[in-house]
Amino acid sequence: MEKFSSRDRQMMLRAIELARAGVYTTSPNPNVGCVITNNDRIVGEGFHYRAGQFHAEVNALRMAGACSVGATVYVTLEPCAHYGRMPPCAEGLINARVLKVICAMEDPNPKVSGRGIRMLQDAGIEVEVGLFQSDAEALNPGFIKRMKKGMPFVQLKMAASLDGRTALSNGKSQWITSLQARQDVQVFRAKSDAILSTGKTVVEDNASLSVRWQDFPKSLQIRYPQSQVRQPIRIILDRSGRLHDGLQLFKSLGSLLIVDSKQEKINAPVNFNNQLDLSKVFMSLAEQYHINYLWIEAGETLASSLIKSGLVDELVFYLAPKIIGSDGRGLFGALGLGDMADVLELKIKDVRQIGCDIRIITTVESKGVVKQEES
Amino acid sequence: MEKFSSRDRQMMLRAIELARAGVYTTSPNPNVGCVITNNDRIVGEGFHYRAGQFHAEVNALRMAGACSVGATVYVTLEPCAHYGRMPPCAEGLINARVLKVICAMEDPNPKVSGRGIRMLQDAGIEVEVGLFQSDAEALNPGFIKRMKKGMPFVQLKMAASLDGRTALSNGKSQWITSLQARQDVQVFRAKSDAILSTGKTVVEDNASLSVRWQDFPKSLQIRYPQSQVRQPIRIILDRSGRLHDGLQLFKSLGSLLIVDSKQEKINAPVNFNNQLDLSKVFMSLAEQYHINYLWIEAGETLASSLIKSGLVDELVFYLAPKIIGSDGRGLFGALGLGDMADVLELKIKDVRQIGCDIRIITTVESKGVVKQEES
Repeated sequence: MEKFSSRDRQMMLRAIELARAGVYTTSPNPNVGCVITNNDRIVGEGFHYRAGQFHAEVNALRMAGACSVGATVYVTLEPCAHYGRMPPCAEGLINARVLKVICAMEDPNPKVSGRGIRMLQDAGIEVEVGLFQSDAEALNPGFIKRMKKGMPFVQLKMAASLDGRTALSNGKSQWITSLQARQDVQVFRAKSDAILSTGKTVVEDNASLSVRWQDFPKSLQIRYPQSQVRQPIRIILDRSGRLHDGLQLFKSLGSLLIVDSKQEKINAPVNFNNQLDLSKVFMSLAEQYHINYLWIEAGETLASSLIKSGLVDELVFYLAPKIIGSDGRGLFGALGLGDMADVLELKIKDVRQIGCDIRIITTVESKGVVKQEES
Repeated sequence: MEKFSSRDRQMMLRAIELARAGVYTTSPNPNVGCVITNNDRIVGEGFHYRAGQFHAEVNALRMAGACSVGATVYVTLEPCAHYGRMPPCAEGLINARVLKVICAMEDPNPKVSGRGIRMLQDAGIEVEVGLFQSDAEALNPGFIKRMKKGMPFVQLKMAASLDGRTALSNGKSQWITSLQARQDVQVFRAKSDAILSTGKTVVEDNASLSVRWQDFPKSLQIRYPQSQVRQPIRIILDRSGRLHDGLQLFKSLGSLLIVDSKQEKINAPVNFNNQLDLSKVFMSLAEQYHINYLWIEAGETLASSLIKSGLVDELVFYLAPKIIGSDGRGLFGALGLGDMADVLELKIKDVRQIGCDIRIITTVESKGVVKQEES
C-alpha cells in the first residue's frame, strides 16, 4: 500500500498553495502552509505571513479550535521545536492532541533538522515525511540555501537585445526592454530581501532600486497592498566611491548598505587580486542580515565576476526583440574560453513573453568557467 | 445578416488545413486547398501537391464527380483563369456547373488578380471573396511576396548562446545549439526553395546545406517520405573564390548556384561600393529561378548586410542556454547606432523550446537601420 492516500496528496497541495500567500512577506522566515483535517473534513488552515507573527501551524490550530483533537495535520515544513518569540509549533500540536502529522520536508537547518519530528513522535503522534518534498523545497530555495550553505539564493537580472547587447556603444540603453518587462522586474525585487548593484550602474542609470508598488501588475496590487510593501535592503558595491548626494538612490525607499572602502558595516573583504571577495560579501549578507533572496542588477563587469565565481543560482534574462549590433555593449565581459567544453551551461527553467519581450529564467548547470580557472 | 455562415467558416478552415499538406512540395506554385459541398455534405476535397500536377480545385472536382452540379466550392485562393499546363480552374468549375464559389483571397499576382472571379461571375456563378483571408495569406507568404514584389520571402537563421555569441574567439562553434535545434533547421530547409550561404561559412563549417531526411522529426518523416524530398537550390556567394573541390558541398544533394566573379549564371551585380548588390541577386532568384522561400545560413558579415538593407522578412533565432562571453563572435557586425530610436525593432511571432534550446521567430518591424542610412 502507498504511504500517502490521494486525499493526503490533495491536502498537502492545498498546504503548499497556502504557503505561497506569504511569498512577499515571510523572509527571512520560510514560507509554510498548514491544513488540519478531522474525519476527512478541513477544520483548520493557515500560513506564515510575516516574521514575528504566528507560524502556519498555530494559525491553523487556532482556526481548528477543539476540532484539532484526533486530527491529521499537513504541513509543508517540519514543525519547529525551539523556543523563540513563540513557543515551538511541535508543542502546540502536542497540546492540541492531534493524531498524525504529515510534513512535506524536514527542517533544512542541519542544527535543528529532525528535532520537531522527534518531539512529536515522543508524544505518541504518528509522523510521516516526504509528501511532495520537491514542491515544498521549491517554495523556499532562499531559506534552504541559507540554512544549508550559509549563502543567499542569488538571482542575476540581465536585459538585452536579441543579439545580446545591453546598450549602444555610447552607453544609451533607455529603454531596451518594454515597460511590461520593467514592471515584471518589480515583482522579482518585491520577492527579494536585498537588491545588489554597483556604484557604476547606480550612477549611470540614476537607479533608485526601490520596489515601486505602482508598477506591480494589477493582480499583485490586489494580493499585496501598498501599505504592506517591504522594501528590500539596497546593497551598493562602491569601492571607488562613485556615489554622490544628488542620486535618486538617496531619495527613495529602502535601507542602504554601501560596501565601500570607508564604511565598515559589511567588511569589504578583498581577495589576493585586491578584488572584492563577493563570496565573503554574500556570506555576510546571509549571516548578518539573514538575506535569503539576493536580486542583482548590474553591468557586465560584476555579471562576469559572478558567473566566473559560480555564485549565481538563477539568471533572469529579458530579451527585447531588437538588434543593436556588435558595437553595442555585451552582457558579460570577456571570459577567455578556448574550448566549447568550457562554455558555461545553463538550464532553462521558464520561458515566456512579457509584453513584447521574452523572459528566460535559467539555472546554472555546470561550472564550466570555474573548472577552467581551477585547472 | 453575416455574409458567411458558421458552416462556411468550417469549410474554409478545412480547405486551409488541406492546403498545408502541400507545404513541402508545391513551390514555386502556391499552397491551395479546396472543399466542395452539396446540400451541406462534403462531396469533394483536394489540394495542390506539386507544380505540374492537378490544382486543388481539379482534385476536388474529380472527387465530387456528378455531385459538383449545384455545389458550393470553398477555395483558399482565387481559381486561375489562364491556360498553362492545365486548362484554367475557373473553366473547370464552370463546366462542373457549381452554384457558388467562396475564395479566401484574390490571386496576389496583380496581372491576373480578379480574372478568375470575373470568368466565374460571367458564367452566372455566385462568388464571394475574403473568408479567412489573412489565414489564407499566411499559407503563402513566399508566393505572395514574389507575385507582388518580385522578391522571395527571406528567412535568416541565426544560432547563438544566450549572450548572443555564435562562436568562441578562436572560431570554435560545434556545437552551440543542441541536436534537436539542428534537426529543426532541416524542417526550414525542406520548406525552402533555396538555401543561401557564403563561401566563408561553407568552408569554415564544411557545410553541405542539403536537406537531410534522416534528421527530420519522426512526424515529418511520415508526412513527407524520403523518396519525395525536394532538394532546395544551394546558392553560395563566393566572390573571393574560397570554395575548393574537397568540400562536402560538392558531394551532397541539391543543385548549386555559385555567385562568384567568374560564373555568369546569375550576374554578380555590385553596387557603388563594389559590394554585391543583394537586392538584385534576390530579384534574379525570384525572376529566373522562381524562388518563393529563401533560407539563409551565414555569418555576421552577410547577416549585417541583410539587416542593414532591410531584405529580411523573418529572423529565426536558436538560442542555446550557454554563456560564451564578450570575446566570442557576435551575431551581427557593428551597426554604428547612435540613438535608441535607430535600433532595429523586431516583432515576436513565435517562441518555443526546441530540445534544450529556445527558438524565437521574429518579423522585421521597422527599418530603423535603413532609415538612419538614408537620412
